Amino acid sequence: MPDGRGAPDAEGARMYALVEELYPICRSITGDGVRDTLARIERQLPAPLVRTEVPTDTPVLDWTVPNEWNIRDAFIADASGKRVVDFRESNLHVVNYSVPVKQRMTLAALRPHLHALPDHPDWIPYRTTYYAETWGFCLRQRQLDALPDGEYDVCIDATLAPGNLSYGELVLPGDAPDEVLLSTHVCHPSLCNDNLSAIAVATALARELAARPRRRWSYRFIFAPGTIGAITWLAQHRDVAPRVRAGMTLVCLGSDHPFTYKRTLAGGAEIDRAAAVVLRDRGAGDHLIDFFPYGYDERQYNSPGFRMPVGSLMRGRHGMFPEYHTSADDLGFISADRLADSLAVVRGIVDVLEANRTYKNLAPDGEPQLGKRGLYRATGGTNIPDFNLAMLWVLTLSDGAHSLLAIAERSALPFTSIAAAAARLHEASLLAEV
Amino acid sequence: MPDGRGAPDAEGARMYALVEELYPICRSITGDGVRDTLARIERQLPAPLVRTEVPTDTPVLDWTVPNEWNIRDAFIADASGKRVVDFRESNLHVVNYSVPVKQRMTLAALRPHLHALPDHPDWIPYRTTYYAETWGFCLRQRQLDALPDGEYDVCIDATLAPGNLSYGELVLPGDAPDEVLLSTHVCHPSLCNDNLSAIAVATALARELAARPRRRWSYRFIFAPGTIGAITWLAQHRDVAPRVRAGMTLVCLGSDHPFTYKRTLAGGAEIDRAAAVVLRDRGAGDHLIDFFPYGYDERQYNSPGFRMPVGSLMRGRHGMFPEYHTSADDLGFISADRLADSLAVVRGIVDVLEANRTYKNLAPDGEPQLGKRGLYRATGGTNIPDFNLAMLWVLTLSDGAHSLLAIAERSALPFTSIAAAAARLHEASLLAEV
Amino acid sequence: MPDGRGAPDAEGARMYALVEELYPICRSITGDGVRDTLARIERQLPAPLVRTEVPTDTPVLDWTVPNEWNIRDAFIADASGKRVVDFRESNLHVVNYSVPVKQRMTLAALRPHLHALPDHPDWIPYRTTYYAETWGFCLRQRQLDALPDGEYDVCIDATLAPGNLSYGELVLPGDAPDEVLLSTHVCHPSLCNDNLSAIAVATALARELAARPRRRWSYRFIFAPGTIGAITWLAQHRDVAPRVRAGMTLVCLGSDHPFTYKRTLAGGAEIDRAAAVVLRDRGAGDHLIDFFPYGYDERQYNSPGFRMPVGSLMRGRHGMFPEYHTSADDLGFISADRLADSLAVVRGIVDVLEANRTYKNLAPDGEPQLGKRGLYRATGGTNIPDFNLAMLWVLTLSDGAHSLLAIAERSALPFTSIAAAAARLHEASLLAEV
Repeated sequence: MPDGRGAPDAEGARMYALVEELYPICRSITGDGVRDTLARIERQLPAPLVRTEVPTDTPVLDWTVPNEWNIRDAFIADASGKRVVDFRESNLHVVNYSVPVKQRMTLAALRPHLHALPDHPDWIPYRTTYYAETWGFCLRQRQLDALPDGEYDVCIDATLAPGNLSYGELVLPGDAPDEVLLSTHVCHPSLCNDNLSAIAVATALARELAARPRRRWSYRFIFAPGTIGAITWLAQHRDVAPRVRAGMTLVCLGSDHPFTYKRTLAGGAEIDRAAAVVLRDRGAGDHLIDFFPYGYDERQYNSPGFRMPVGSLMRGRHGMFPEYHTSADDLGFISADRLADSLAVVRGIVDVLEANRTYKNLAPDGEPQLGKRGLYRATGGTNIPDFNLAMLWVLTLSDGAHSLLAIAERSALPFTSIAAAAARLHEASLLAEV
Repeated sequence: MPDGRGAPDAEGARMYALVEELYPICRSITGDGVRDTLARIERQLPAPLVRTEVPTDTPVLDWTVPNEWNIRDAFIADASGKRVVDFRESNLHVVNYSVPVKQRMTLAALRPHLHALPDHPDWIPYRTTYYAETWGFCLRQRQLDALPDGEYDVCIDATLAPGNLSYGELVLPGDAPDEVLLSTHVCHPSLCNDNLSAIAVATALARELAARPRRRWSYRFIFAPGTIGAITWLAQHRDVAPRVRAGMTLVCLGSDHPFTYKRTLAGGAEIDRAAAVVLRDRGAGDHLIDFFPYGYDERQYNSPGFRMPVGSLMRGRHGMFPEYHTSADDLGFISADRLADSLAVVRGIVDVLEANRTYKNLAPDGEPQLGKRGLYRATGGTNIPDFNLAMLWVLTLSDGAHSLLAIAERSALPFTSIAAAAARLHEASLLAEV
Repeated sequence: MPDGRGAPDAEGARMYALVEELYPICRSITGDGVRDTLARIERQLPAPLVRTEVPTDTPVLDWTVPNEWNIRDAFIADASGKRVVDFRESNLHVVNYSVPVKQRMTLAALRPHLHALPDHPDWIPYRTTYYAETWGFCLRQRQLDALPDGEYDVCIDATLAPGNLSYGELVLPGDAPDEVLLSTHVCHPSLCNDNLSAIAVATALARELAARPRRRWSYRFIFAPGTIGAITWLAQHRDVAPRVRAGMTLVCLGSDHPFTYKRTLAGGAEIDRAAAVVLRDRGAGDHLIDFFPYGYDERQYNSPGFRMPVGSLMRGRHGMFPEYHTSADDLGFISADRLADSLAVVRGIVDVLEANRTYKNLAPDGEPQLGKRGLYRATGGTNIPDFNLAMLWVLTLSDGAHSLLAIAERSALPFTSIAAAAARLHEASLLAEV
């Protein structure tokens, strides 16, 4: 398969397998978990992932790179030495970026450091403390309720010390230097939908695009920790930003929810229109929402200093499904089918960007006689086939001012039909690209 | 009646009578049927119809004028010599533009040349083969089902040979050289709604406008075969196209359906706004639809090389009523009342174009005192009469930037009220035209 | 209270008391009733009301100042001398601006001069005859029905003679010379909602703004008779008109109806957007309507010669509640609570105008690190507090092209939250005003 696209089932299974492989790793915004994750992503790709290590205290835009965090073990043990909360069971048990602690304390003293979800007593919450030097444990409400008063040994065997922040990039050059940016956050520990699903989709798409013999645009895949990673990337790529003609953050792409595409700040960008048409053509009741300055790294890309046309594609929306940021976002919460589905939508959007050209009708006076070119049915009846209608729309609007995307929007015909009709008319010398 | 407008009942009856007169004629995109039709239209007009004959093989835009088609007789006869399908019964029985044939053949061999409508077994379909040299017959499904196997004599006594394409035009000059174009296709054989109805409406309107002592705009009526006729006209009138400030194709105006006005490609043209206001003021739930590049000759007029502001007014929409392009589109499918109704709407649109001027309020500071000019009720109560409100709207928006049409749109008052109010204010020297 | 704002209950009561005080006075477009009303308004203010007297026959725009009307008594007495209609009972009984009359006449001769409301037989209508020299009485339908045939003594002891038209103004200077204009009509006699309610609200707001240590804009309160008063003011303040950056007519603000804000003619003016956001944030299902050239003095301010951005705020809409312009618009039809409510809305709109600034984000590259400035919660969870979200919106859109009002509109967050967030960010040196 020259375009690198495997059978949908096989692709779904391969993406799911990558999620399974990455699931146990304890990731954070820095540390070996991220490095390990990037290494495993790279093994899926035909080309090396460019990995960048940025030292602690490096100023990046308004921020500075924080200390690197690594954790080996953590637990709360009761008087008998039995671990009642154990990092080895789930890395969500430790508040991410906790400072080291080794201490005996009463339950009363410990309690302010414990986080649980009363409404979901069997789920472990996911909490972070990146920018406040403290520590904590997350546990099931049932576990918390079962803890008898008394003394506990608390241990977080972690280091929070100068080191580096790590991120990875893959650039696939195209005919034009203009870039399409696809960005995923790689900082979440054992959470499948958020964001191993999107990591897997991005990896599969990168593999597929790398295998294409030719790309119109250049593609840049960024695998970086959320917020600080994107900020660091922006600080180091001020030259790239103006070349980005379209982009998306990819998030939460493995669950059963319908798709939600979140527009760029400006709205009406080519990526917004491409995503809208692909979801419209899919006909499955997906959602389009306006930009708001909360969510994922589209916030950074759209900030006043950059204003890059970067939207966001997701299925479940952060904070809007109960499993979000809990242990219930596990391997059973996502599926190979949904990953394959998500890959198809992202590919569909990319394919619109690749095919969206603007033409001039070379026989603009009246309708050209399609029949003499073998492009029209011979016997007049009452209906017109969709492909003929697509050709008529392309001829009518191809005045140099309407892209194929604009024609698909106005005609309400699938973009793929419009693009196929344009290809046929171009072949028949009825169109010239402007 | 100086404006040429007869009593509505009489006008409806006269239009219906013209349809009756034209119904039996076998029309096509060329040939004597078209010539005969144009001659009969001309008899209804106070001025000669300019008739143009364009020789076969003349290049017209991307097309060439085809051979002329004339038919004298056609039939399928069984072994006993009995005509089982007979052109003399209905000219729809022959596929329009069939090449001559005279042959004995089995039903099996004949069958690929036979067209029927299984869903409407008592209707004869209308089919054409303008640009493929073949032949065929259309018949009722019941007729087809009743044909026993065996041999048949097939005869189409037609000529398809070099000749001419014919169309007619009437230009009624006005104060300004800018033209309003009203175009109808005259190529359909015995079909009443499509398009004898619109031919009759156009003829009646032409008669009426010709009788007016004065016209603001020039009016051009085109009676031409569909597609190739409009293309031929465009090829021969490149100088006229830029002078067309508004236009409509008139189609299917005799049936009971609500009106549908199809906008120009650009949309928002004066003709679009005039039609929208007239249908709005009519208050009968009529429809406005966007342009699409299928339908009637608005396709040609709106093509990239011309982009003329030509919309389309219809009642039943082509392909959207079952009788479309079948023998059921007969004299019983239309009525004099609906024709009269259609004439009223077309006239209403024309009258908006005639009356749509832009004024400047000559007492722009505050509201002028209407009372001292006898334009306002004397005793203040709780309500304001509509005519007073229309005057206030005209005074408020007449700043040189709002036409009467814009005022009618914004005020939601009938255009006729706005125009009458403007006339009254103009008389009172409160308005000057800009 | 340095901003002059009393407790809401106290303010409501004080406004209601002013309505009670003004209710008995017989006002008209000229005369002592207006003067007395202006004098009583002035007593509520910390600064003198500038009062203007404009002589009869002074040309004002397209009008001239009419004769001054004053009335002392009026009645219809039966043969026994008993007053069956008595001005002393209600000043609505006399058609406002009636010429003097003293005459004995039959009921039949009198009848054309009598106005009643068959549908509301217990209400006295309010009628005027400013610009036609005639006279009349308004009475309850029940009174009219009970009048026996016979002779009546009719007396209107009024003078309609050269004098003056009176209006009052209060200007509160601000940091900028640009003005916010608040205009109320003071010409209606004993009608509470229309317009003593708005007179009371305007008076309370003037008192409150006068007490503020600082105002960004200058405020002009106009208390003038409807139509002719606004026209006279415009004729005498052509220099002021261009300085008016926003304005509203205040009308019918005491009844239980939801608010209706009527937009300026142009629409989309700052006052339109401010009013829309305040009503949206109120969340009570209030209404926004487009401008139309009927209603109150917004007609004059928006006329082509001035085009001032003046909208209108009302509760009940004129002509759309049955009590409008009848004796049922009495002290029981309005309440102190509704007046307090109206004051809050008008103040809210004024506060948007005062606070609506445009900023530039001084850390525009990516999101600034709010945490290090103590502006962000420390531990990441699933939700974001509204105040944080407001800060993010302000930072995202503060590129010099979006005012706080635009940010409140787009974010759908309350303007007060957006303004508070901007203040906090400005304090933290993250914003500079442009």
